[in-house]
Amino acid sequence: MNNLNAFFSPNRIAVIGASSNPSKIGGRRFRTLVEGDFKGEVFPVNPGVGIVQGRPAYKSLDDIPGPIDLAIIAVQAGLVPQTVSACARRHIPAVMIITAGFGEQSDKGRVLEQKMVAELATSGGRLMGPNCAGLYDRASCMNLSGMDVPPGPIGLVSQSGNVVLDMVLHARDVGTGLCRYASVGNSADVCATDVIENLLDDPATKVVVGYIEGWSNGEGRRLYDLVRNHPSRKPIVILKPGRSEEGQQATLSHTGALAGNDRVTNAAFRSAGIWRSDSPGEAVNVAAALVHYPRLSSNRVAVLTDGGGHATLLADALGGAGLSLARLEDSTTQQLVAILPERSATANPIDFAGAAEEQPDIIARTIEICSRAKNVDAVALVGHFGGYHDNGGEEIGQQEIATAKLIVNSRKPEDAPLFLQSIHANRSKPALEHIKCSGINVVRSPMELGQILNALARPLPDHQGQCASKIERQPSVEHGLIRTRGTDRALLEPEAREFLTKNGFTVPDWQVSSDPNQLAEQCAQSSFDNVALKLIQPGLAHRSDAGGVILNVNGTATIVEEAGQLLGREGNDKARDAAVMATEMIAPGIELVFGAMRDVHFGPVAMFGLGGIYAEALNDVAFHLAPLHESAAASLISEIQGASLLFGYRGGPAIDIQAAAHLLIQLGDVLMAYPEVDEIDLNPVILNEHGLAIADARVILSETAGAD
Amino acid sequence: MNNLNAFFSPNRIAVIGASSNPSKIGGRRFRTLVEGDFKGEVFPVNPGVGIVQGRPAYKSLDDIPGPIDLAIIAVQAGLVPQTVSACARRHIPAVMIITAGFGEQSDKGRVLEQKMVAELATSGGRLMGPNCAGLYDRASCMNLSGMDVPPGPIGLVSQSGNVVLDMVLHARDVGTGLCRYASVGNSADVCATDVIENLLDDPATKVVVGYIEGWSNGEGRRLYDLVRNHPSRKPIVILKPGRSEEGQQATLSHTGALAGNDRVTNAAFRSAGIWRSDSPGEAVNVAAALVHYPRLSSNRVAVLTDGGGHATLLADALGGAGLSLARLEDSTTQQLVAILPERSATANPIDFAGAAEEQPDIIARTIEICSRAKNVDAVALVGHFGGYHDNGGEEIGQQEIATAKLIVNSRKPEDAPLFLQSIHANRSKPALEHIKCSGINVVRSPMELGQILNALARPLPDHQGQCASKIERQPSVEHGLIRTRGTDRALLEPEAREFLTKNGFTVPDWQVSSDPNQLAEQCAQSSFDNVALKLIQPGLAHRSDAGGVILNVNGTATIVEEAGQLLGREGNDKARDAAVMATEMIAPGIELVFGAMRDVHFGPVAMFGLGGIYAEALNDVAFHLAPLHESAAASLISEIQGASLLFGYRGGPAIDIQAAAHLLIQLGDVLMAYPEVDEIDLNPVILNEHGLAIADARVILSETAGAD
Repeated sequence: MNNLNAFFSPNRIAVIGASSNPSKIGGRRFRTLVEGDFKGEVFPVNPGVGIVQGRPAYKSLDDIPGPIDLAIIAVQAGLVPQTVSACARRHIPAVMIITAGFGEQSDKGRVLEQKMVAELATSGGRLMGPNCAGLYDRASCMNLSGMDVPPGPIGLVSQSGNVVLDMVLHARDVGTGLCRYASVGNSADVCATDVIENLLDDPATKVVVGYIEGWSNGEGRRLYDLVRNHPSRKPIVILKPGRSEEGQQATLSHTGALAGNDRVTNAAFRSAGIWRSDSPGEAVNVAAALVHYPRLSSNRVAVLTDGGGHATLLADALGGAGLSLARLEDSTTQQLVAILPERSATANPIDFAGAAEEQPDIIARTIEICSRAKNVDAVALVGHFGGYHDNGGEEIGQQEIATAKLIVNSRKPEDAPLFLQSIHANRSKPALEHIKCSGINVVRSPMELGQILNALARPLPDHQGQCASKIERQPSVEHGLIRTRGTDRALLEPEAREFLTKNGFTVPDWQVSSDPNQLAEQCAQSSFDNVALKLIQPGLAHRSDAGGVILNVNGTATIVEEAGQLLGREGNDKARDAAVMATEMIAPGIELVFGAMRDVHFGPVAMFGLGGIYAEALNDVAFHLAPLHESAAASLISEIQGASLLFGYRGGPAIDIQAAAHLLIQLGDVLMAYPEVDEIDLNPVILNEHGLAIADARVILSETAGAD
Repeated sequence: MNNLNAFFSPNRIAVIGASSNPSKIGGRRFRTLVEGDFKGEVFPVNPGVGIVQGRPAYKSLDDIPGPIDLAIIAVQAGLVPQTVSACARRHIPAVMIITAGFGEQSDKGRVLEQKMVAELATSGGRLMGPNCAGLYDRASCMNLSGMDVPPGPIGLVSQSGNVVLDMVLHARDVGTGLCRYASVGNSADVCATDVIENLLDDPATKVVVGYIEGWSNGEGRRLYDLVRNHPSRKPIVILKPGRSEEGQQATLSHTGALAGNDRVTNAAFRSAGIWRSDSPGEAVNVAAALVHYPRLSSNRVAVLTDGGGHATLLADALGGAGLSLARLEDSTTQQLVAILPERSATANPIDFAGAAEEQPDIIARTIEICSRAKNVDAVALVGHFGGYHDNGGEEIGQQEIATAKLIVNSRKPEDAPLFLQSIHANRSKPALEHIKCSGINVVRSPMELGQILNALARPLPDHQGQCASKIERQPSVEHGLIRTRGTDRALLEPEAREFLTKNGFTVPDWQVSSDPNQLAEQCAQSSFDNVALKLIQPGLAHRSDAGGVILNVNGTATIVEEAGQLLGREGNDKARDAAVMATEMIAPGIELVFGAMRDVHFGPVAMFGLGGIYAEALNDVAFHLAPLHESAAASLISEIQGASLLFGYRGGPAIDIQAAAHLLIQLGDVLMAYPEVDEIDLNPVILNEHGLAIADARVILSETAGAD
């Protein structure tokens, strides 16, 4: 279904709205297409002029003889629908609308977009856009981007043309570039995930980079499944704003796509092995590194510096990213002492202390030693190499170039990978150009280098591939679910407990009755000793706030009395619907929350965290998309900040990881199996010396399901 | 005492180790000094050559006639001590040692440094270094930095020469520069804080920037006091690594200074109004903005973009920094609709949607409207302005320049401040040069702009100036303190309670006895109802882990029995020293920790946070240096992540802010008044419906104080 080949490998392209004016949108794209020596044929369409940038122009699309593979539409907004109709008539398989002013501006625009998508679909055509910035494929020499694009291994998809321009400048600085690129604009039809699928299949693309502001319907989950199941293990880097409320607002107004729960996005990316980036520069730096370098199997870095500060800043960044300074073996230190002047520090960080600026070649020798040293997984040179000659004079400049050559030429395949940070990285410095050309990354700041090393050290997700849900819908359940008597979307708690029990959860026994005497009898039969009583009534939210809970109730008489109290509280009218639920008191312990929710973009997600009053106040929770593998569920439990509380902290109880993981898997599976369930909240689940016990259960139905 | 004038405004400078070779340390510094047209006299000292860079050289310092104000020492390490002696003999008031290889390398080096400091002190001289990078003062035309320094309003102090080089490159990009700079190296005598004091006094310095890796003895607290008490309200930006463990390690090995508790550093900087920076680039960007812009009194930003992505990225950064997108009034929107083409979005962010690249002057008109709109505190233009001509051609380039002039010329003093982000910020673009020259900041990325706006919106600290401790030492206390019978540095709990009570704390009543019967009687006399019993015994750490606590003990007989049990547990030998303490049980509630500690760099610090088992597991605590003002103490309480738990969460108890603030102030004051106390831990303090109650108190003495 996802065949975007006509977009990236067309033979015949029509550019409708092509112009000779390079300040016009249609002028810029046509200029780069022509100047880029596109291999196929190009047909400018412009009714007003005879010639466009030296090519004879057609008055209309209909005038072009023969089939067209790709149509680029850059006419004014009012003319777009009829142009799309013309494309549909001609059965053009790929149509990109550059023109803006549709779904990103109004509901009317959104409707119009859908009409155009449908019209093209009838003739088998796909639509990219509207509001696109361009298209590029190096293998086809097709540059419809309107800018110069440096060549390189990056396949790029973006919802913003400006961000692409930004990334292209960064790519030039790093010495990398693009092989394929599409701007998907409003994603009315072709969305970023479609392009990512294409890029994963594209043999020229070695790393996928995306700028995604928001998702189209179901796209988030589709990307997650795509990446986890795709046979290609290409690295993927996505710049995804929306970490803050303000960012989400802007996203809403800009692309019309909902920015989802940001922590769910993080969870999805992490378990799919997608690197989430914070800035265009970081995205390009990390992408370039993921192409040029192997993943680091261990995290010990040898840091070389011409002075002190940058090593300290890098060490700081390393620590924040879970990397460490390598401890050099004595033999390594001895080799260093032998070649370095006395003033240099030979412990890691290795500080030339001004000697490198006078005699640059000691850098090359030190790199060689460190790259072959035991305990060293990566070597980083930081400071201002490449620009020593700024202050040291021309002769030093020549020595810098010689040193760069020495560094490059002395490298062996088995050497620990080498990284450079220089404050001159973005300037034209011959020694650095030499280094960059050899595939060694050179970045401007120690923080950027820290990000790169962090990305390379991040373990690959260990559970790629499909993971099946193990829960099947219970056929006994009406509408697939117990019908709720609740007047809101929440099942009453006994209903929730029954639903969970039927689906294999271990829920502590409960009794419920609207008659206090009967309830007391049921409790006696169940050998309940010390009970909690809860008022059960449709529409009664926030039960404990409303005084609907009585704890530590002992003995038949007291149960009768207290249950009567609870029922009386609500007055005669409502009492008809009311009942009281009794459960045995659970010994105190650490309150946890186990839950599952349906994220608008990523679908079913399981959640674990500190519960009770701490759940909301501290927000110490972790997410993983369902269905969950056992090890993913287990690692979720260690992921919360307060995790140390769970493993026998100060003589307290220790969590049974297997049982907890199983509970999380079950919760995720229920949401997979029952689309009408929106959310399940087990809060608190109490961890005490007897294990885990569900003390409260809420099941929330989707808006379209459940209630009578 | 802090008169560093001889360093920054000398008349006669001797450069010992001056050389003609610009790749040598002494060659570079001497070159920039000579080429910088230093106003005073310069005396190169070099026994090996007759002429240094065109100046006659002296064989030794002693040969120079007349007084010398400043000596720069750049000879090999072995010759440094005798050179310093020569300086002392000549009563040179200011000596800077560039040479490295002393305290940063070994203990021996540190001893040598102190010897040199002492020797100079006898003749009234001050030492900067060793291991310095340079010195610069624009007013004196003194450039001893070894590099070209762009002029500007920044006064800079650094512990690393490389970071200065880095900052200088950033300053050039932003269009700013330095007026004074000193590298303090190992800070054997003159430390960063000394230079900061000088910069606060220097009329040319409009903003102080520092790179500080570690503190010399007592320097952190001195900086805090200096900044809070100095009449100058100059902004201060400090790049301080050490946020991660790795950074702290590198700091240790690099400067030999201890990196303190990083959260205390944050607390100190924040309440002194110092902006803590994470990178050289951020430090320069923020410093330039703090000079050129007024502080933002409110935080509503109008964002203008030529495309979409950068606005989204900026909005994201704004949200993370507590700023917001301005809601434009209808009248503003109408003005925008009138001038902008239909495809543009006129809600904030205002998106020209490709129109600006074709007709740049609409930017100027939009900026003018937004700068005078109600509800707008700042205007930010983001995207790629200045480089439209890259793809749009030369004519557009001319229009960009005209637009830049229009933007600059139409600004009025009462306009909301204007900020620019352009992906071409670091490139030479005429339109952007025009903007920069007018004092408008132009940065490379939306994230950098977010940092700048965040710094400008940060409220100034409201409690500058001295705040006196109110606790006086109790003369009744032996050695100023109750003598502990504890064998470690912790007072026994009854001693701690007595100490606190004597100093005005409200500590719940307690009884202690080594005789169970007597204890029961004391409890009865105190009308204790339901008690907690704790075993009190020297050297007994982690009491509750050791089973030394029994809760909820009722009635005389039970007290006798349980206390007997506790005492029996330890065997006969130790029982001699043991006693049991009884306190009335405190009703359950939220467990908090109130504490105070003595930070190695910043001295007494108060701490507040979630207590009990959550204290360590969640680390949800906040710090403020003592002594505390009432409002600072109060705001500390709202600062923790779980603060919402404290204000009647879900019908729970609400904290009495005044009482809690008072307790924090008291804790800080005790550490101010008793240098022999290192730490006080009230954990837990229980917040229930009756208020706050101290349930456990630990007082830790310093290593040199207390124990018998």
